[in-house]
Amino acid sequence: MQPKDIVYVNGTFLPRAEARVSVEDRGFVFGDGVYEVLRVINGRLFATRFHNQRLEKSLAGVRIQLRDEDSPARFVDIGKQLLKENKLLAGEATLYIQVTRGAATRAHFFPPPATAPTVYISVARFTPSADLAENGAIAITHPDLRWGRCDLKTLNLLPNILAAQTAKERGAFEAMLIRDDVVTEGTRTNFFGVVNGSLRTHPCDTHILPGITRSVLRELAREVNIELDETPIKASEIPKLTELFLTGTTTDVMPVVKLDDKPVGKGKPGELTRKLQRVLAESLASGGD
Amino acid sequence: MQPKDIVYVNGTFLPRAEARVSVEDRGFVFGDGVYEVLRVINGRLFATRFHNQRLEKSLAGVRIQLRDEDSPARFVDIGKQLLKENKLLAGEATLYIQVTRGAATRAHFFPPPATAPTVYISVARFTPSADLAENGAIAITHPDLRWGRCDLKTLNLLPNILAAQTAKERGAFEAMLIRDDVVTEGTRTNFFGVVNGSLRTHPCDTHILPGITRSVLRELAREVNIELDETPIKASEIPKLTELFLTGTTTDVMPVVKLDDKPVGKGKPGELTRKLQRVLAESLASGGD
Repeated sequence: MQPKDIVYVNGTFLPRAEARVSVEDRGFVFGDGVYEVLRVINGRLFATRFHNQRLEKSLAGVRIQLRDEDSPARFVDIGKQLLKENKLLAGEATLYIQVTRGAATRAHFFPPPATAPTVYISVARFTPSADLAENGAIAITHPDLRWGRCDLKTLNLLPNILAAQTAKERGAFEAMLIRDDVVTEGTRTNFFGVVNGSLRTHPCDTHILPGITRSVLRELAREVNIELDETPIKASEIPKLTELFLTGTTTDVMPVVKLDDKPVGKGKPGELTRKLQRVLAESLASGGD
Repeated sequence: MQPKDIVYVNGTFLPRAEARVSVEDRGFVFGDGVYEVLRVINGRLFATRFHNQRLEKSLAGVRIQLRDEDSPARFVDIGKQLLKENKLLAGEATLYIQVTRGAATRAHFFPPPATAPTVYISVARFTPSADLAENGAIAITHPDLRWGRCDLKTLNLLPNILAAQTAKERGAFEAMLIRDDVVTEGTRTNFFGVVNGSLRTHPCDTHILPGITRSVLRELAREVNIELDETPIKASEIPKLTELFLTGTTTDVMPVVKLDDKPVGKGKPGELTRKLQRVLAESLASGGD
């Protein structure tokens, strides 16, 4: 029997195919909302506290106020119920949580205070790419055309979409975004690289999303005595990269072995990348909260 | 009797309260779409050809392909039918046309080619602000945090929303956005100013939306021998502004008499502003297509 595909919208659990929102929802007309994606392995959710904190920060950043009875923790509980209803307690899955500023007559400024935010929560089966993790992925460089608050996880994702699509059309898994001559991050991942033997990534500021896996890996690297230098990689340093990998909730540590049709380092996953893949995998195998 | 409030979604005319889209619509999860707003006076639509061209340009810019049977001209025809159904053939109204990349399982890159774009069209009663047109509006300056393709009229409007809301909370009608030390435009209008007797506005590039009223006014100014210098106004030139006004489909030519709590020029609508208000009003009174 086909498993049910049940999602949650504004207090109601219903089949995905029937889950609809008003055409006046500010998510639909303005991309006026924020979201999170959580990793689930055998029913265990990862880094829930970090995701909840980031959702709070995104909501505050765009000034969406939840109803008193709502909270990121409550959304995660709803997510757990969805995992159960959709029979996703075994194997890998993702939990998606989205909050918009609600439905109201279209106007740029905020809707009346009584307007309840729209909450959409769904879960999905997820299959990590063992092949890319093992053999490495292909990436391209692409101009970073995004706005000035990339630290907020908002629904305004058109620049990410256009870059991700360009990457796909060029046979690549991800686009490495370049702003003001430095590597910021990917369209849905953070980028780490090794230049002159030193592991580097962009610091957390308004030009990158503070990735949860990025942050977890930062701690894990420290534990295994790998130093991380949060000085952004310059575009001019790209030819000097000996290792390159990306991190994300659904990508873990993914080696990048080819960039803009040129091999990165020896064209295969590097030593530091392999080590960090291992420590993250161990953490995922033992972790969950 | 309350007039009906009928909108159009994907081939169906239905009451606004029943008009809904899938939670998987890319408009809802990514702001992945574009739109237009047209002015309607007594059933006559203005600058339809320009709006249609701009919609084509926005669609091409974000690479959304309409179904063969669809076109901006067809959407305008649907809009005309909505004006009739909603009894908006007398007085002032607006026509809103939105196209998203359609509904599909969430993924950053484009959905399968068979995915039909979502088309949402609605009309609304509109009352021009005679008071602001006569006495002038208040504006604030605000950092321009938008992305690198402001020339496309997309649904990624969060930076516009946040700036518009800040303006509203400071008692202002509009926020004048500043990027790299020059005035670009407003959150939903273009800005024109007079510095040292010369009328200036930002040139059309990727940092501003090519406003239809901006473009109409450019032609009208030429006809009445007012020279327009498309050299952006620098932030440092703001104290030298003797006149300031904004233009837009629903704002016409609106004088700005106070900026960041300081009077602009003599604190009342200037001579050039009044002249351009008149020529635009005449054009609206006689025009329509």
